[in-house]
Amino acid sequence: MAEPLRLGIAGLGTVGAGLVRIVQRHAGLLETRAGRPIAISAVSARNRDKDRGLRLKGYGWEDDPVALARRADVDVLVELIGGTDGPAKAATEAAIAAGKDVVTANKAMLAVHGQALAEAADEAGRVIRFEAAVAGGIPVVKALGEGLAGNEIKRILGVMNGTCNYILTRMEAAELGYDEVFAEASALGYLEADPELDVGGIDAGHKLALLAAIGFGGQVSFGDVQLEGIQRITIEDIHLAADMGYKIKLLGVASRTGRGLEQRMAPCLVPETSPLGQLEGATNMVVLEGDAVGQIVMRGAGAGEGPTASAVIGDIMDIARGNRLPAFGCRASDLVAYKPAHNASPAPYYVRMKLKDQPGALAKVATVLGNAGVSIDRMRQYRHQDPAAPVLIVTHKTSPVALAEALAELPNTGVVIGEPVAIRIEEV
Amino acid sequence: MAEPLRLGIAGLGTVGAGLVRIVQRHAGLLETRAGRPIAISAVSARNRDKDRGLRLKGYGWEDDPVALARRADVDVLVELIGGTDGPAKAATEAAIAAGKDVVTANKAMLAVHGQALAEAADEAGRVIRFEAAVAGGIPVVKALGEGLAGNEIKRILGVMNGTCNYILTRMEAAELGYDEVFAEASALGYLEADPELDVGGIDAGHKLALLAAIGFGGQVSFGDVQLEGIQRITIEDIHLAADMGYKIKLLGVASRTGRGLEQRMAPCLVPETSPLGQLEGATNMVVLEGDAVGQIVMRGAGAGEGPTASAVIGDIMDIARGNRLPAFGCRASDLVAYKPAHNASPAPYYVRMKLKDQPGALAKVATVLGNAGVSIDRMRQYRHQDPAAPVLIVTHKTSPVALAEALAELPNTGVVIGEPVAIRIEEV
Repeated sequence: MAEPLRLGIAGLGTVGAGLVRIVQRHAGLLETRAGRPIAISAVSARNRDKDRGLRLKGYGWEDDPVALARRADVDVLVELIGGTDGPAKAATEAAIAAGKDVVTANKAMLAVHGQALAEAADEAGRVIRFEAAVAGGIPVVKALGEGLAGNEIKRILGVMNGTCNYILTRMEAAELGYDEVFAEASALGYLEADPELDVGGIDAGHKLALLAAIGFGGQVSFGDVQLEGIQRITIEDIHLAADMGYKIKLLGVASRTGRGLEQRMAPCLVPETSPLGQLEGATNMVVLEGDAVGQIVMRGAGAGEGPTASAVIGDIMDIARGNRLPAFGCRASDLVAYKPAHNASPAPYYVRMKLKDQPGALAKVATVLGNAGVSIDRMRQYRHQDPAAPVLIVTHKTSPVALAEALAELPNTGVVIGEPVAIRIEEV
Repeated sequence: MAEPLRLGIAGLGTVGAGLVRIVQRHAGLLETRAGRPIAISAVSARNRDKDRGLRLKGYGWEDDPVALARRADVDVLVELIGGTDGPAKAATEAAIAAGKDVVTANKAMLAVHGQALAEAADEAGRVIRFEAAVAGGIPVVKALGEGLAGNEIKRILGVMNGTCNYILTRMEAAELGYDEVFAEASALGYLEADPELDVGGIDAGHKLALLAAIGFGGQVSFGDVQLEGIQRITIEDIHLAADMGYKIKLLGVASRTGRGLEQRMAPCLVPETSPLGQLEGATNMVVLEGDAVGQIVMRGAGAGEGPTASAVIGDIMDIARGNRLPAFGCRASDLVAYKPAHNASPAPYYVRMKLKDQPGALAKVATVLGNAGVSIDRMRQYRHQDPAAPVLIVTHKTSPVALAEALAELPNTGVVIGEPVAIRIEEV
């Protein structure tokens, strides 16, 4: 019989418990598919006595995940602790130093330390795999890095935070404001301990940075992601966008431009008839565009015990079968340090503002936009809501810089009440 | 420098030409990603003198693909000839016998000879890969066999023939009958030389059989696919289905039942709001359902030079990187010979018939259905079109066998004009 692949599982939360269950339930299936058994040698978690409803008998136990990583009977460290630094990083480094492969679901750690960890793994002849770190059960890391490996990647788009998509689609369906739905989501336990990770776009930004590194062969640079959360999205914007045929999504977009690598995670309008526009609830969707393949759309559960554990065991199966791809698809030393290109790609924009009810108000706004080179595609003025009239403009494709100039100039017209709201329309 | 992976490309049609272009255009990209160059040693096609707009200088030429497969300077035979038997199969067998790996886009060959070829490859320690054989550029073979390798697969669904989906969506959009759109598609060159391969569901059935083998660990058994084409679908059915909230698709479904493996490629109704229902034009979509991952949806171009060549080069990159998975995800000798389970899964059905305009007609129909154990969920009788009234019934979930009994009994009521039409409603 072939040698088993021996796992050390660090972290027995939702995903860790799900992984243990899969390894136990599907032992025969996994062995047939991998050509060798998948075995758990030992586990580690903070509290040994907690009842997790798991059979852990026969597995070794380590209080310290670093000690787990170094065990002689562990071939693969499965890091499911989480956190950018701390024990997750220490255990990952210890595993690589001890000649073990690593499978992790830790987007935060990789988004910040991915390059250094990938270099260490290359030098040690070990692999780091992280399908579960991006879009849960959707095998998008594999599709991008392996399935589309013959493509020059043109653009990567994605709705990669289920909580944000839940909030936005729930606001529309239930006619509720952001704060109400946020409170609801919080009560339902949908939010991270630090909700800013979700609604601020940070969690989704980590994921985008990882996909961008694979797709464009670049060093992971989460710090270069232009981040904007969904907190300022109002039910009014959702209604007005719908009136123009759009949905508002927290959308990640990465593309290579003449000025460098552009990475954005921000609310965007997408056509309501597009796959992204039709995405409801906590589901995730990633769109991959390559020069040969055209557009590939992948959709599935972005979180939860089963989907995330499915991605983790998929990586384990790859290692068991001898698929030893470097973390980001090529040697870490070959990854390019791209210059960040902020606001590089032109796009149409949705612009909403409140105008004073006075003659010539609209003309003044149009003049400011025109002077900045921003051309109007469609405009609607809604019935006056004393003292202001809501005005909605969809621009033609414009440079984000020109639009920002125009928006900065608008208050000087004396006819705009409050701050105009501008949201990019992503063409998909 | 690492050793190049040396290709012998058999067939220089659309896909072969696309592959040559990718290898030439992306030489640097491929080398960085694979850690070694991808080189073309030699090519083979029927007509050496044909102008394909390709640079072939420096490559060896073989008139005979079998000779190409045996060349000492070829590591991987890329079989893009097509056809169930003949030169494609001869070259594939010769390559394996000569110790070469094989990448192919040939669904017909694998659907019929897949088991024997996979066994031969296993024995020779060689691999056969065929991402391009299923759903063009969508990396679904990889997603199913690798990404979801830790899942027990519950069901595989797919719209995998772009021409049929084009015909069905075009009929609806343009209010045209099947024959008219068929003629249109034919004039546009969308149909295979033998159009029955497309509209009869054979091509899509080949693809379903391949996915079912991977997903359920079974021997490929195209002969066990229940096949039904789209030829009998009328614009009336498309309208009435839409009236009930459904779209008609040529849908492949594979699932393991208590009685064996069920494989169907047939027109089905799917909810118009589902991803499958929203699929327009020649695009393909595959839905994978696993016990851990839940539902994964993948969408993309199912044919064409770029997408298909993208899948072929993806397989080549896998081999170059040392990913040597057996053809159907486990040793061929471990693949199960499933019993075919025809008509095993219950489902709701759409039933359309024409009733005579006479008192009690509907009651007679309802009685026949009730006696067979078929329960009615929704029913609509449309305005009489002399002498008949179109009646549309959506049943509750029913066994296909019970429904067939009821349909066979209906003519005996004396109130049904012509043959009732029944189409399965697939729950997605």
